[in-house]
Amino acid sequence: MDIRSSVLVTDFYQLTMLQGYLEQGMEETAVFECFVRTMPPERGFFIAAGLAQLLEFLENVRFTPDELEWVANSGRFSRSFVEYLERFRFAGDLHAMPEGTVFFANEPIVRVTAPLPQAQLIETRLITLLHYQTLIASKAARCVLAAAGKPVIDFGLRRSHGAEAGLLAARASYLAGFAGSATVLAEPFFEVPVFGTMGHSFVQAHRAERHAFEHFADAQPDNVVLLLDTYDTQKGAQTVVGLAPRLREKGITIKGVRLDSGDLVDQARRVRRILDDGGLEDVQITASGNLDEDAIQHLVAAQAPVDLFAVGTRLATSADVPYLDCVYKLQEYSGKPSRKKSEGKETWPGAKQVYRHYDQRGRIEHDVVTMAADTQEGKALLRPVMDSGKRSEKSPSLNQIREHAMVELATLSDEIRRCRQGATIPVQISFALRDLARVVDARDEVG
Amino acid sequence: MDIRSSVLVTDFYQLTMLQGYLEQGMEETAVFECFVRTMPPERGFFIAAGLAQLLEFLENVRFTPDELEWVANSGRFSRSFVEYLERFRFAGDLHAMPEGTVFFANEPIVRVTAPLPQAQLIETRLITLLHYQTLIASKAARCVLAAAGKPVIDFGLRRSHGAEAGLLAARASYLAGFAGSATVLAEPFFEVPVFGTMGHSFVQAHRAERHAFEHFADAQPDNVVLLLDTYDTQKGAQTVVGLAPRLREKGITIKGVRLDSGDLVDQARRVRRILDDGGLEDVQITASGNLDEDAIQHLVAAQAPVDLFAVGTRLATSADVPYLDCVYKLQEYSGKPSRKKSEGKETWPGAKQVYRHYDQRGRIEHDVVTMAADTQEGKALLRPVMDSGKRSEKSPSLNQIREHAMVELATLSDEIRRCRQGATIPVQISFALRDLARVVDARDEVG
Repeated sequence: MDIRSSVLVTDFYQLTMLQGYLEQGMEETAVFECFVRTMPPERGFFIAAGLAQLLEFLENVRFTPDELEWVANSGRFSRSFVEYLERFRFAGDLHAMPEGTVFFANEPIVRVTAPLPQAQLIETRLITLLHYQTLIASKAARCVLAAAGKPVIDFGLRRSHGAEAGLLAARASYLAGFAGSATVLAEPFFEVPVFGTMGHSFVQAHRAERHAFEHFADAQPDNVVLLLDTYDTQKGAQTVVGLAPRLREKGITIKGVRLDSGDLVDQARRVRRILDDGGLEDVQITASGNLDEDAIQHLVAAQAPVDLFAVGTRLATSADVPYLDCVYKLQEYSGKPSRKKSEGKETWPGAKQVYRHYDQRGRIEHDVVTMAADTQEGKALLRPVMDSGKRSEKSPSLNQIREHAMVELATLSDEIRRCRQGATIPVQISFALRDLARVVDARDEVG
Repeated sequence: MDIRSSVLVTDFYQLTMLQGYLEQGMEETAVFECFVRTMPPERGFFIAAGLAQLLEFLENVRFTPDELEWVANSGRFSRSFVEYLERFRFAGDLHAMPEGTVFFANEPIVRVTAPLPQAQLIETRLITLLHYQTLIASKAARCVLAAAGKPVIDFGLRRSHGAEAGLLAARASYLAGFAGSATVLAEPFFEVPVFGTMGHSFVQAHRAERHAFEHFADAQPDNVVLLLDTYDTQKGAQTVVGLAPRLREKGITIKGVRLDSGDLVDQARRVRRILDDGGLEDVQITASGNLDEDAIQHLVAAQAPVDLFAVGTRLATSADVPYLDCVYKLQEYSGKPSRKKSEGKETWPGAKQVYRHYDQRGRIEHDVVTMAADTQEGKALLRPVMDSGKRSEKSPSLNQIREHAMVELATLSDEIRRCRQGATIPVQISFALRDLARVVDARDEVG
């Protein structure tokens, strides 16, 4: 069973609320929006991602016979409710920021307009899909900016939180500018270019490091990247130099070496010198091992001769910020704007739009969040992407999304692109929206 | 397609190494071990979890026709390699700590003994399965200890890193003593008890909070848990008191209320007083909203009248420690022990066993890690669980695992159970193992 498309990847309260709505005949149109409530101090911007998987989920969402049987046998729901679920389809409208768009706290990235039960039931899966890829794309973009033009690769699968996380991390990081991933499945699924070298076990399993290197080169003559640090990095580099002529005779070129431990600045310099002295100026150095944007920035600032960065665990878990305060909130029901006023978690009511304003150099100056009906100057970021449960337009390819993300990153000021703590873009809440909140609050006081 | 069982949920280098091994005829027996390299300062112990999913994966691992086609068409592998993959099965032996066992850094929790290519190919998926559930079970156990006997529920699905993470977090937290989860799919998959209340949207969609409460009670008469903080928590509690007699007439009892924001100690006290004054002494209070073990400990220490804790995002992402330094390393090949010596990442060579020593009160005193062949006093923690690719014994049920975990938590000293930073158990590396490492190093110097 493919849990990625299962409608039971949801919170139990979605089902109990649904039965409540249906018993009361509450099937009027609702507007929900997905947004991130706060910007963590460690971030200055987010990259919207996950929409493609969300659209696919919504187009196909239904209860399978097994799932209906589980609901019926759980003893918690009425027969008519189960019959409703059997017919359940998503037939709503979506407005969304295109994947790859830069955004900030309090800006809706997806707006769902649908009959209340439909808009409600999809909440949990919608958040898992948008939250995780947005989290990873935002982290990956920082790595790309830190690498200052050098390629970055995703090595994070093994410590990602499960198979779906690993697969989507490969997509989200590629979308944000990574050159590729080590995750094999990301190529058949998303055409993400796949990269790989060798592990320490390959070296250990051989009687000597030089045998391991030669056998690997024989088996993968077009992709000879050798791991140097199993025993002693510098000896490993010398072994590579010693081996190169023999491989050259067989027509094999060593493409690169990988460093995975120790002081990478120091190791890269020493290895570079050994390789250059041995006539291997073209052999590239890949650095890996607990890298993140800070470590990359450090290597770049120190001018370490690293050609390619591989980022693993800290990318796929977004280790410094392992979650965003990403929510999906009811903003309007049956034409009536609404907001929640829980202490510290207030939201702005109504269906909204985000307008972006640029300076003369094309850099983002500020954003304005206002009601969808309040047409303003600036670039509107939310666009129709789904109409009555069907895609409004052909979805962009992953490479098109990636190009869009690169254009978007270029609209950030140099200060934000340097990923300095506290550097971000001001988001204004329009006067009209503030007025609406007051009206809604006054009504709820009385009501 | 079910990605959970896909053999391509792996790193590309597993395939390139495999082709290298096969071309050299390197199919002798290898021993790999999975362990956590270091204990994070925020943790004092781990709970082993994920073995059931690993065994299921290994029993069924094979390349599907689509996957073989991808490998063949990638242009990177030989025809004979693709034919080998077509026949690929896992036929190795496993020793493992039973799920629910308490363990510490440097202690293998799974030992794989198999022909080198088989033991190698499974590395990535083995780590994703053992790492994530161990991470979550270890975090969940801290929440259980902090709750001091009160039930704790998993609400983490929406911000978990994908569908598999959410599903496995429900299992791992239940295994570690949680009372259940809001994740629906965890019940059909793992028989984890499912819990749920209502969301803010349910209240907002109604004209008034009291209508929302009454409609919810009508729809779910056996599970009336009402969310109080959508507008004003204390008014919400008064509304519950006002509604109770009318529901009683219909034969409906209000089971509980939920608080999700604000100062939970203060809110719980005020709400408790309002409920008690209204004759609703039996209505339970659930607290949620950014909880983790520290917040629970705070609520318990303040004697806040909370009956049930719901822990979400910070559990499912293990937010303070979003990954463990969990690895899978070659320890022996063709009868020859081996170790990697990378700076700061050295491992101990050879197939190993862990022996546990208890004090007179049954509390863990210390553990000893030694060679598997070096039989010692103490309780051996690694047991045979798979023999030539088949389970050695019927796997325990999730409830049996949970009972084992509760027994294991009771073997921790009071200091460790209080989850104070720095409190952990000493793990000794045996003299025999240190000697072996010296022998291996001397051989590798010469080799």
